[in-house]
Amino acid sequence: MCVRDTVARVFPPHTPVGRIGEKALLRYIRSRVSHGRGVSIGIGDDAAAVETGPLTLMTTDSLVEGVHFRREWAPDTLLGRKALSVNLSDIDAMGGVPRYATVSLCLPADTPFAFVEGFYDGLLSRTAQTGVEIVGGNLSGTSGAIVVDITVLGHGQPLLRRSGALPGDVAMVTGRLGAAAMGVRLLGEGSRLATIAEDDQAARRCLVAQLDPTPPLGFGNAVAREELAHAAIDLSDGLSGDLLAVCQESGVSAWVDGDTMPIDPGAAMLARDRGIDARDLALHGGEDYQLLLAASVEAVPRLRDLAAGMEIALTVVGGFAEGEPALSLLTAQGAVPLVPRSHEHFGGGG
Amino acid sequence: MCVRDTVARVFPPHTPVGRIGEKALLRYIRSRVSHGRGVSIGIGDDAAAVETGPLTLMTTDSLVEGVHFRREWAPDTLLGRKALSVNLSDIDAMGGVPRYATVSLCLPADTPFAFVEGFYDGLLSRTAQTGVEIVGGNLSGTSGAIVVDITVLGHGQPLLRRSGALPGDVAMVTGRLGAAAMGVRLLGEGSRLATIAEDDQAARRCLVAQLDPTPPLGFGNAVAREELAHAAIDLSDGLSGDLLAVCQESGVSAWVDGDTMPIDPGAAMLARDRGIDARDLALHGGEDYQLLLAASVEAVPRLRDLAAGMEIALTVVGGFAEGEPALSLLTAQGAVPLVPRSHEHFGGGG
Repeated sequence: MCVRDTVARVFPPHTPVGRIGEKALLRYIRSRVSHGRGVSIGIGDDAAAVETGPLTLMTTDSLVEGVHFRREWAPDTLLGRKALSVNLSDIDAMGGVPRYATVSLCLPADTPFAFVEGFYDGLLSRTAQTGVEIVGGNLSGTSGAIVVDITVLGHGQPLLRRSGALPGDVAMVTGRLGAAAMGVRLLGEGSRLATIAEDDQAARRCLVAQLDPTPPLGFGNAVAREELAHAAIDLSDGLSGDLLAVCQESGVSAWVDGDTMPIDPGAAMLARDRGIDARDLALHGGEDYQLLLAASVEAVPRLRDLAAGMEIALTVVGGFAEGEPALSLLTAQGAVPLVPRSHEHFGGGG
Repeated sequence: MCVRDTVARVFPPHTPVGRIGEKALLRYIRSRVSHGRGVSIGIGDDAAAVETGPLTLMTTDSLVEGVHFRREWAPDTLLGRKALSVNLSDIDAMGGVPRYATVSLCLPADTPFAFVEGFYDGLLSRTAQTGVEIVGGNLSGTSGAIVVDITVLGHGQPLLRRSGALPGDVAMVTGRLGAAAMGVRLLGEGSRLATIAEDDQAARRCLVAQLDPTPPLGFGNAVAREELAHAAIDLSDGLSGDLLAVCQESGVSAWVDGDTMPIDPGAAMLARDRGIDARDLALHGGEDYQLLLAASVEAVPRLRDLAAGMEIALTVVGGFAEGEPALSLLTAQGAVPLVPRSHEHFGGGG
């Protein structure tokens, strides 16, 4: 019979999860997750119970096999890291601090145990870096694609909303753009992190940006605490689409300077080799998981100091103006309308 | 260009979601969800922000097409209701009150708009009944099965855990058992709610129990507030599996009286017709979404009064004893070991 506190069996890596069974796999996961600060009840009851403040942030994001990832593209550990990172990015973009997560996995019966092991290796490496606690979740079979769905709770006050941008504000972004979009292109061409040449730093940067994004965590929270920005959003759909979302929520228009965008140098070089306009990658590529801020001109010096102190690049890429929500792109030839070409997830594969 | 507060277009029912696109579908969903009490920031930002107390309950449950449901079995409205109900059941089993939910939908590109419309009709009918607020979520494409993943937050203090059952406690269950399991069997045989004979009350009860479960919401919270039970769990895997889970968490054994289980009379009748032992449905069938409690004998009269006041059936089905976590079944022939035959979700289809 089952005994309480059974030590989890570790299964041979190729064992299909359908043979291991839901309950044994839950015991394995539970054995790997230790509960720390703020967790009154963790994995193993009908619900988790966690300590919260008067205002709780809540966000959910999914990664779907064949849409957001392919298992042959990278080790499962990186998928575990990314599944959490994309949610942490949302909490930081609200100015909050992430605290707790639930993890829902839908797995075909023939998924090898190694997937679950690798996924949790990566997930737990990311929780260790960020102090987030895994407090529960769900395991289910599926006849279709692997689906990973993570919900993260956080706290923060004051918050950064999408809706506060004012005419006259500058638009700023953290980090460099376009590398993740070039990364997915390289994966499609057959490049892999494991086999890429040691000295091919450009391709390596792009693959890492796509497979293991590292949002500037903590920066959004620092900006919110000092009330240095009027609005913020994380760059998941692409600069154009996300900037337009800020415009729509704020009731303003915006312009982007095509010459000052901080395009990732590796992505720019690889784009040149392929005859692609690197600005398109930065404007429309998506999955940068950097922060886009709307702030008054007066706040820029302090924002720059704050970013420099956290070793985060911060660049003015444009500004906001009166008008219907719409974008324009400034080029040497003048201003042209900028229409987002963001990802639409129902479009299907890769 | 897009205009703020665009009124959502309603699409012809057969329009594939892949043609509507993620952003337009999000606008549609957002237009249907109004935010009430406790919601500072709802759908439309990087994360929701909700008012919480010092302790927050958090639970996640998925419904996967081909594993937990089939679209031809019932209207999409019932799926929307059930996807929320199974999570509400978890919060109530902790003694809590559900407050907020995020909804993640993974949909193949050819899913008709009518699915989303029907799903939200049902979901919102359930939120209206229970006061739960939909505050966010995610939409994604998939090449595989539809996956619905809902996370619910609640509050409550004191809580009901799985781990508090004591030797000498009685085991009690709410409602009647086995109807949902018979319902899934009827669906497999081709019965449908829409076409079942008016006077076939037994089959109707079973189909409704399977397709539109109604956990005894509020009872767990009432029991917790009066501290009337030592442990609780909601019956999702089946009485045997869930009772064993309480034993494992509490470090006790338990017995079930095979003659006093409150078997649903409709399920019992239909089981008899099919030569099935109705007790097996009640013991192992699963998806009853009733409450199993461990309570002292002294608490039973007050528990009965409380249940009667809420028009909830409450039946003593067995008890807990010292010993290794294991179950036995009392029959006219004596006590025999009872081994759960619960659902294992990696087993695959329906």
